Amino acid sequence: MKRTVIILSDHTGLTAEAMGHSLLSQFKDFEYDIVHWSFLDTEEKIHHAVAQINNIAAVSGQRPIIFSTLVDPEIRDYLKQSNSLILDYFESYTGALEEELQMSSTYIRGQTHGMANTHAYTNRIQAVNYALNNDDGAVTRNYPTADLILLGVSRSGKTPTCLYMAMHYGVLVANYPLTEDDLDKTDLPAVLQPHIDKLYGLTIQAEQLQRIRKERRANGRYATLEQCVWEIQQAEKLYQGHQIPFIDTTAMSIEEITTKILSAVDKNQR
Amino acid sequence: MKRTVIILSDHTGLTAEAMGHSLLSQFKDFEYDIVHWSFLDTEEKIHHAVAQINNIAAVSGQRPIIFSTLVDPEIRDYLKQSNSLILDYFESYTGALEEELQMSSTYIRGQTHGMANTHAYTNRIQAVNYALNNDDGAVTRNYPTADLILLGVSRSGKTPTCLYMAMHYGVLVANYPLTEDDLDKTDLPAVLQPHIDKLYGLTIQAEQLQRIRKERRANGRYATLEQCVWEIQQAEKLYQGHQIPFIDTTAMSIEEITTKILSAVDKNQR
Repeated sequence: MKRTVIILSDHTGLTAEAMGHSLLSQFKDFEYDIVHWSFLDTEEKIHHAVAQINNIAAVSGQRPIIFSTLVDPEIRDYLKQSNSLILDYFESYTGALEEELQMSSTYIRGQTHGMANTHAYTNRIQAVNYALNNDDGAVTRNYPTADLILLGVSRSGKTPTCLYMAMHYGVLVANYPLTEDDLDKTDLPAVLQPHIDKLYGLTIQAEQLQRIRKERRANGRYATLEQCVWEIQQAEKLYQGHQIPFIDTTAMSIEEITTKILSAVDKNQR
Repeated sequence: MKRTVIILSDHTGLTAEAMGHSLLSQFKDFEYDIVHWSFLDTEEKIHHAVAQINNIAAVSGQRPIIFSTLVDPEIRDYLKQSNSLILDYFESYTGALEEELQMSSTYIRGQTHGMANTHAYTNRIQAVNYALNNDDGAVTRNYPTADLILLGVSRSGKTPTCLYMAMHYGVLVANYPLTEDDLDKTDLPAVLQPHIDKLYGLTIQAEQLQRIRKERRANGRYATLEQCVWEIQQAEKLYQGHQIPFIDTTAMSIEEITTKILSAVDKNQR
């Protein structure tokens, strides 16, 4: 019987989830069943949770491992009565931070992934809409307001990256697909030239590009290795010729691409 | 001079960022400048960071607060030589988990937000593409493969929620906008009827809906309060009449809407 891991929170549980995954990914051979218990924000709900935890421990003969973010110390105390290993983020660090800052924690729930900071939240949603409206080069008139314009050949990962950047950081990011026409030339497409400081290129290994393109449209030149190799070569030449920074997305997740690009851009103080 | 907070990681820093924001949001009166240092994965980079930290501490007269996720204990040891308060997630919990599991941590970086789990990652990207391709009711032929179909009137938050669900959980989620035509009837739109078990409704306060609609298109009936009130009333009647679960998104972030819906759906064991 596998061990049970519980992501437990008084709110969305997203921080607890990130923590749990980070730590568990360090234990390759550990097999477990994971459950998410969110919005446990009353005494009643936590009592019910404690009963469930004890039941799992009794039935499986192994105490569950709990990753939790419980703001309220009283609720945490109830949880501690259960037969489990509790790794609670607020439990571990609130004291140290209170001491360092000589301030008291507010102990208010739902500050992280709620709308506590309405302005920042509105920016993020507006950025998502911006990414959707300025996807794939169909509209270029909003480029003056973009923070960043991603370039790349078809299926190099522009759209999901734009959406992630927008959703998490409120970055206004458009994307422009490099067409065969663009790739035939050494000049930058005219519509991009006024915005050269905002450009960031994506590149990808030809074999992987071919694989992705085949899933979308198996036949025709679009998904041949030859075509993929040529497009990527031309795109990289274009980046290099115009000193546009670029990144190889082949083995990278959208989280990695995003944080790499944003930290590079930050360093250049754009 | 404000205190400096550093989000420091050997990889993307997303877990450290979630942790830092969670904890700092509990200290309302604490003013700080925040910087993100990602991909500090070599001795050289960490030495450079230590010098910068000490410099900030000397110049400002206040030691920086560091939220870090450093997998390698040696790298952590270097960091500890700096003049700072370090709250490192792996430092705090790896030992406890090793003891509990009677296993050793692998100490490999970039397991969380990389592509370590390629299958799950591919699912997430496919889900993003699914959300984009099945947005706003334009295409309904893929409904049989949807995990979930969100309903709501125009601008009730369907699209950003779908994208968030897809991006984070790999859920295949389509969305269907309830039109005036649909809202005039008590029957469910024919295209939705075979999928009644997958439906989840969104609702929103009329005043907020009006505010959002005005930003998009200020004139005409679309953004009048009367129209917003009517659409929402009809939508809620439709949900109630067909026992479709629904949620009021007025004061909720996409993170909250997503986790609420997914935990509700989970409980119903769909």
